[in-house]
Amino acid sequence: MACFRMGSCHEVPMTLFKNNRDKVCKAIVAKSQEGLKLGTGQLLILLEGGKELSYYNTDVDYVFRQESYFQYMFGAKEPGCLGILNIDTKTGKPSAVLFVPRLPDEYETWMGSLLKPDEFKAMYGVDEVYYVDELETYLEKASPQLILTLSGTNSDSGLTMQPPEFAGKEKYVTNCDLLYPIISECRVIKSAEEIEVLRYVAKVSSDAHIKVMQFIRPGRMEYEGESVFLHHAYAVGGCRHASYTCICGSGTNSAILHYGHAGAPNNRPIQDGEMCLFDMGANYCGYAADITCSFPANGKFTEDQKFIYNAVLAARNAVMETARDGVSWVDMHKLAGKVLLERLMAGGLLNGDVDEMLDAGVSGVFQPHGLGHLIGLDVHDVGGYLVTEPARPTEPWLSKLRFARILKAGMYVTIEPGCYFIKQLLDKALANIQIRKYINVEMLERFRSFGGVRIEDDVLITKTGAENFAIVPRTVEEIEQTMASK
Amino acid sequence: MACFRMGSCHEVPMTLFKNNRDKVCKAIVAKSQEGLKLGTGQLLILLEGGKELSYYNTDVDYVFRQESYFQYMFGAKEPGCLGILNIDTKTGKPSAVLFVPRLPDEYETWMGSLLKPDEFKAMYGVDEVYYVDELETYLEKASPQLILTLSGTNSDSGLTMQPPEFAGKEKYVTNCDLLYPIISECRVIKSAEEIEVLRYVAKVSSDAHIKVMQFIRPGRMEYEGESVFLHHAYAVGGCRHASYTCICGSGTNSAILHYGHAGAPNNRPIQDGEMCLFDMGANYCGYAADITCSFPANGKFTEDQKFIYNAVLAARNAVMETARDGVSWVDMHKLAGKVLLERLMAGGLLNGDVDEMLDAGVSGVFQPHGLGHLIGLDVHDVGGYLVTEPARPTEPWLSKLRFARILKAGMYVTIEPGCYFIKQLLDKALANIQIRKYINVEMLERFRSFGGVRIEDDVLITKTGAENFAIVPRTVEEIEQTMASK
Repeated sequence: MACFRMGSCHEVPMTLFKNNRDKVCKAIVAKSQEGLKLGTGQLLILLEGGKELSYYNTDVDYVFRQESYFQYMFGAKEPGCLGILNIDTKTGKPSAVLFVPRLPDEYETWMGSLLKPDEFKAMYGVDEVYYVDELETYLEKASPQLILTLSGTNSDSGLTMQPPEFAGKEKYVTNCDLLYPIISECRVIKSAEEIEVLRYVAKVSSDAHIKVMQFIRPGRMEYEGESVFLHHAYAVGGCRHASYTCICGSGTNSAILHYGHAGAPNNRPIQDGEMCLFDMGANYCGYAADITCSFPANGKFTEDQKFIYNAVLAARNAVMETARDGVSWVDMHKLAGKVLLERLMAGGLLNGDVDEMLDAGVSGVFQPHGLGHLIGLDVHDVGGYLVTEPARPTEPWLSKLRFARILKAGMYVTIEPGCYFIKQLLDKALANIQIRKYINVEMLERFRSFGGVRIEDDVLITKTGAENFAIVPRTVEEIEQTMASK
Repeated sequence: MACFRMGSCHEVPMTLFKNNRDKVCKAIVAKSQEGLKLGTGQLLILLEGGKELSYYNTDVDYVFRQESYFQYMFGAKEPGCLGILNIDTKTGKPSAVLFVPRLPDEYETWMGSLLKPDEFKAMYGVDEVYYVDELETYLEKASPQLILTLSGTNSDSGLTMQPPEFAGKEKYVTNCDLLYPIISECRVIKSAEEIEVLRYVAKVSSDAHIKVMQFIRPGRMEYEGESVFLHHAYAVGGCRHASYTCICGSGTNSAILHYGHAGAPNNRPIQDGEMCLFDMGANYCGYAADITCSFPANGKFTEDQKFIYNAVLAARNAVMETARDGVSWVDMHKLAGKVLLERLMAGGLLNGDVDEMLDAGVSGVFQPHGLGHLIGLDVHDVGGYLVTEPARPTEPWLSKLRFARILKAGMYVTIEPGCYFIKQLLDKALANIQIRKYINVEMLERFRSFGGVRIEDDVLITKTGAENFAIVPRTVEEIEQTMASK
């Protein structure tokens, strides 16, 4: 059976992508029945795959990673492809046509045997395969009344995907707006086959996190932890790519939310007595994991570390127990904030009425990010703020949420409450009388150089609850045991 | 002292980049004395650093790597910078000005403390630092008669770097053609400080290759070897980037010159009795290594493997003993080809006159690539086919050479003869009576699925010879010993 597989790692059947295609076509037909005007003639969807990308003007390429919408529909690992779904508007059944680049014969010496269209057809389980230069002829024969192409703006990046240019485009009626929200919505609810890939890549990432926790000790460099993670994910898990740049912060770096970038490249020796916050996720066949573990550098929590860690863990547990189909994600964010504040108050760091504090934005001082995000082929997955869904909240402490939807079974999300001591935010809070009044200022000073804690799980929403795919030590005891078993 | 350093790895002093700047300015003044018209007024060089690059329209960025010309002149690891050399046209001494992006205060929460201009100045050892939005004001004050910007075509990729756009550009006389060949030529001859970085990254890469050889055995996946390499290079050597996609071929894959790309991602179990060809190089502070080791999967060469391996080794040794300042690189390619053919003939695979075979292109059947290339900040480094230097040869078996210059002390090159059994090339050769006549066809059939051997070293050209920075086992005995000492 046609599948993607690295070594003896998880087999991703190509039916996964066929089912994705069928789902998208069904959604289009449904929209059409709801009044979307698609005409009665031949309808095509045309998608453009990602292209090879070079470092500046050199002949070195980045290791290619497929564009996520194209991956969703075709699962093709080669750059420079195009794909068409030729839809029977009566049944909604698509015929899938892949167009691959026609490479010169001499490329064989450099790239290995050049697969023939029939070999691609077998490899990807599509209905037809042609060369990209045959697209124009194909379109002439198909004579579509309408071609849907893809263009849309990612609500996390603000970047807009441009619709593809292709030979003969001017001869056809094209629409580049209809498709994006439809596929995006399809991508939000994961299929059974997708769930198995996500479960796999979360497990590989979990195991890699455990390796890192067992490896870290005072004196190790932060980037050594990154390297241990990437190595396990690739050598054992077959994951050539990370889903995002590894965040490996120790000490105060653990309070830098996107630490690890080129200007701050995980390049610090880890010190005794510090917290570490490692946020790392592998990628398999395009599908992402996104897991954060927070742990003491020396393997043993101090009382202060236990206090903050357990406050975050309580927030995480509360959400984990409550999240399910039908629940509002905004409510989950509020719940996490409330539990965090309650625990910080119980430990003496805050004083006052928790609901008042929430309204005043105190939880945003300690957790200046949203509770989590959709995850799938993109680590911050699409579908967050579709026009049909609740808009981004305007309240400062809710506005960082990457979606504000009602949870549905089949959604896959991260749950990632955190508590950070960020100089800039603390100073701002202490300068604001409406917030300062809730804070035990003297005690807060003790936590100035604490850094931060985040606990991030990857969770499948079901009818009855939430299934966590991140299998890592989470309680203080589990973490200490894991780190002791080096 | 200002330097780049990962952990306790090699310290790259920022004087390296200052010396690069001085060298470029001296070269410009020298060109001016040779008649290049630069005027007598204020002369500026303006370079644009690399920009952050996202995966398609998502909010995930590739791990940033600085553009090589900018790295050469400024050694700055952040994206989005600009740099100016303000040149005293009398002395040729430049003043170095770095322009960094002005980031919103709230980025501190996500990226860590935002360095002030003075901190950048101390970190990079430049003369002045401003924000990018201050460039226009700076230029107005400097009031240059001429601004040199950078544009040129890479002779390996054929890609052209576009000159930078900047606010107020229309007010100045700019020239984007003069600079590219001058900096490129400066980059060809390595400074003492550059040599130490290159020596370091070659040593790290060598050690990582040894780890891989000790790890590989039948049943392992090719990509596991890649992962072992990357892990050692990063965790031990502090090299976050590889200089190019790892080529980890086993069996017939070892005859695919650029195996390992997304369509053929090192995803094959290594079999007993096969050859492996692993071509991998780390990158430190922008500087590249590029090393290939070929070895038997099971750690013990067969007689056929010894025959081919020793033929390539003899070609490599001949070049290593002959290459030095003043010698033609084309002659080195010919020498390697000649020795290879002699050894293949001695082993019975070829018959006839070696010089005739060379003219007929027989060596190109077995080694369809050039002997090597310049290496430095780019793995295929710039300066190969500058207009002042010999043009690319037109003979088929020489046309793949990436440069055709006379070697000069301070050049850093790869020496990488190979011998491959590539179906397409063998079939073509056997179909050509002018080549077939030299081949022992029956014996060749035995090698059809042999794969290939490449031996690639990174070598500094000196007045008296060539110093090899790749410290890896090279003889049959050394390789077998290394692989036995798992």
